[in-house]
Amino acid sequence: MSDNDTREDLLAARAYLLRVAEPPASALWRFVADQGPIRAAELVRAGKVPVAVAKETDARRALDPHQDLRAATDCGARLLVPEDPDWPQWPLLVLEQRARWYRDMTPPLALWCKGPGDLDRLAVRAASIVGARAATGYGEQVATELGYDLADRGWTVISGAASGIDGAAHRGALSARGDTVAVLACGLDQDYPSSHAALLRQITATGLVISEYAPGVRPAKHRFLVRNRLIAALGGGTVVVEAGVRSGAANTAGTAHRLDRPVMAVPGPITSAMSLGCNTMLRAGYATAVSSCGEVIETIGGYVTDQERPDSPSRPTDGLDRRELSVHQALDRIQPRSMAKLAVESGIPLSSVRAILPSLELCGLARRTEEGWCAPN
Amino acid sequence: MSDNDTREDLLAARAYLLRVAEPPASALWRFVADQGPIRAAELVRAGKVPVAVAKETDARRALDPHQDLRAATDCGARLLVPEDPDWPQWPLLVLEQRARWYRDMTPPLALWCKGPGDLDRLAVRAASIVGARAATGYGEQVATELGYDLADRGWTVISGAASGIDGAAHRGALSARGDTVAVLACGLDQDYPSSHAALLRQITATGLVISEYAPGVRPAKHRFLVRNRLIAALGGGTVVVEAGVRSGAANTAGTAHRLDRPVMAVPGPITSAMSLGCNTMLRAGYATAVSSCGEVIETIGGYVTDQERPDSPSRPTDGLDRRELSVHQALDRIQPRSMAKLAVESGIPLSSVRAILPSLELCGLARRTEEGWCAPN
Repeated sequence: MSDNDTREDLLAARAYLLRVAEPPASALWRFVADQGPIRAAELVRAGKVPVAVAKETDARRALDPHQDLRAATDCGARLLVPEDPDWPQWPLLVLEQRARWYRDMTPPLALWCKGPGDLDRLAVRAASIVGARAATGYGEQVATELGYDLADRGWTVISGAASGIDGAAHRGALSARGDTVAVLACGLDQDYPSSHAALLRQITATGLVISEYAPGVRPAKHRFLVRNRLIAALGGGTVVVEAGVRSGAANTAGTAHRLDRPVMAVPGPITSAMSLGCNTMLRAGYATAVSSCGEVIETIGGYVTDQERPDSPSRPTDGLDRRELSVHQALDRIQPRSMAKLAVESGIPLSSVRAILPSLELCGLARRTEEGWCAPN
Repeated sequence: MSDNDTREDLLAARAYLLRVAEPPASALWRFVADQGPIRAAELVRAGKVPVAVAKETDARRALDPHQDLRAATDCGARLLVPEDPDWPQWPLLVLEQRARWYRDMTPPLALWCKGPGDLDRLAVRAASIVGARAATGYGEQVATELGYDLADRGWTVISGAASGIDGAAHRGALSARGDTVAVLACGLDQDYPSSHAALLRQITATGLVISEYAPGVRPAKHRFLVRNRLIAALGGGTVVVEAGVRSGAANTAGTAHRLDRPVMAVPGPITSAMSLGCNTMLRAGYATAVSSCGEVIETIGGYVTDQERPDSPSRPTDGLDRRELSVHQALDRIQPRSMAKLAVESGIPLSSVRAILPSLELCGLARRTEEGWCAPN
């Protein structure tokens, strides 16, 4: 970018580059990194590019560079570019690193955004929640509660706005008046799925809806898979709430795994097909089991307060050793027993029983009566 | 055991030693290993024993050595001793090894048995199934099916005959006309729990009910914990179907873990208190998730046939690479598209689209029409 280039030139170049190749376009991304976006856009349009870049861009290079920006303005969207201060540099850095080995991990060249949120700030403490479209009541309940609890603790809930788990997670976060980001696999004007038009408007009002795809681009199966790398990268970890064995959610989990982000799965009934993916990932040691917001935060490595950390219940007999426990167990609640009888019953020598009973009495674990010793009432 | 000692002397000695100390009695066990059972019994009765043995045996050493054998005969039980050919030497060896570090892992001095089963043979291919007494319908269904499937494949189902999961596992095995062993924490005449009297009779008819406790001995909490080491040792692995966080089943799992036997847990809804123990063990990496009999056998290390191994479903598009998938996704089922349109839509160069479409057609994944290309019907 030379001094004479305006921000408008930059946006036009990035919008063109984002559209000219179907993401993730690894050769184009490296070409842009080398040439800068404005020069790269000019060379692509002129067809003066290396073969690898030409393969990615030739089919669409005649497109009008301003068309998408106009359409974005019409639908209230803006283009967020890596040169912007709220570009999520740090969360997306992992894509840049992994793209050396996995071409499908190539970072986005820019992102279409709708909503007041600052993506870089929202991604600081963020968890991705993904799962089946055909979720069960159990899955939706869990996703809603996780979404609510995470947002309530100031964490951003990232998901894909799909039916089922995604929608439940977003709705949970919105109920807590917390932050949530929807990452779409189509243009921001598409309202996909149509049943989520209202939900997407709600997210747009307070959070952020983002996409690599320009207005007008339809959702397609491969775009969901490509989109998933953004969900996996933007969250500090990915939670799969319900998923079939081979599902989009399992794909996002696999991507998170390749990005070395923690993969979490919510256990579910082995009798439910919708939990098969989660349970399989748990069996393979591929995901960590999570049952609460506190466990999600703990797994991602966030700070968990004592109130959030689940506590195991304590019992009055917790402090007793084996011999004390044996004597305690030999006591009956109703029928008093002599020390000698308790020694035979428990197998503990009489001399020890004599020492143990008064200490049990002190803890309220034995009761002395005129006829002998009893368990407390 | 000298040549003059009869089998009756041996049984009387072992019966006395089994009763004179509350199991697990580590000093007594080592004393018996050193002195032999008959000499050890004489010395214990005479009080001529080291202090550690005296501590374990003094409270009961005046007991009649023949009383328990008579009571056993009355209730149809016999005493299985380590000198017998059907003593499960190999499965219990692990207790002997671990007893060096954990006194509560001391092996049994003998076992009371009821039923036609050969314990040593039954333990060759055996899985222990344990879980909550207050099981849910889900847990009982899973335990019954696992019990059935394991027994149906010739595996012995070992459990504790308690209400809930234990009973369901035994019943499942019995329904398959397979082998099952119940390990009790009380005398074999006790019918505990009373609601399982008929179940225990059924197990006795074809399998085996065993216990370290002589007829007349009541169940007590510490005896359940002590009994659990036998369940954990006799199974090649232990499956927890449902369990609270701190439960007897979790204790058996912990024991199996200390014995280096595989610990397995069935995942369950995180909204169910009865699955809390299982899900917690999975989160801690303490247990392997299992969802089927095949996975249990696989985890224990048994041979799993291809029919038993769960298979992931396949899709017609499985063999396609990313570019072929992109073109395939750009096809519409109804509206035919030209190759040029498909190139723009998919972002794949037109020359490649020309090569890809006929190969998709060959696999039945694309349909050529007069107006262009469609997805298959």
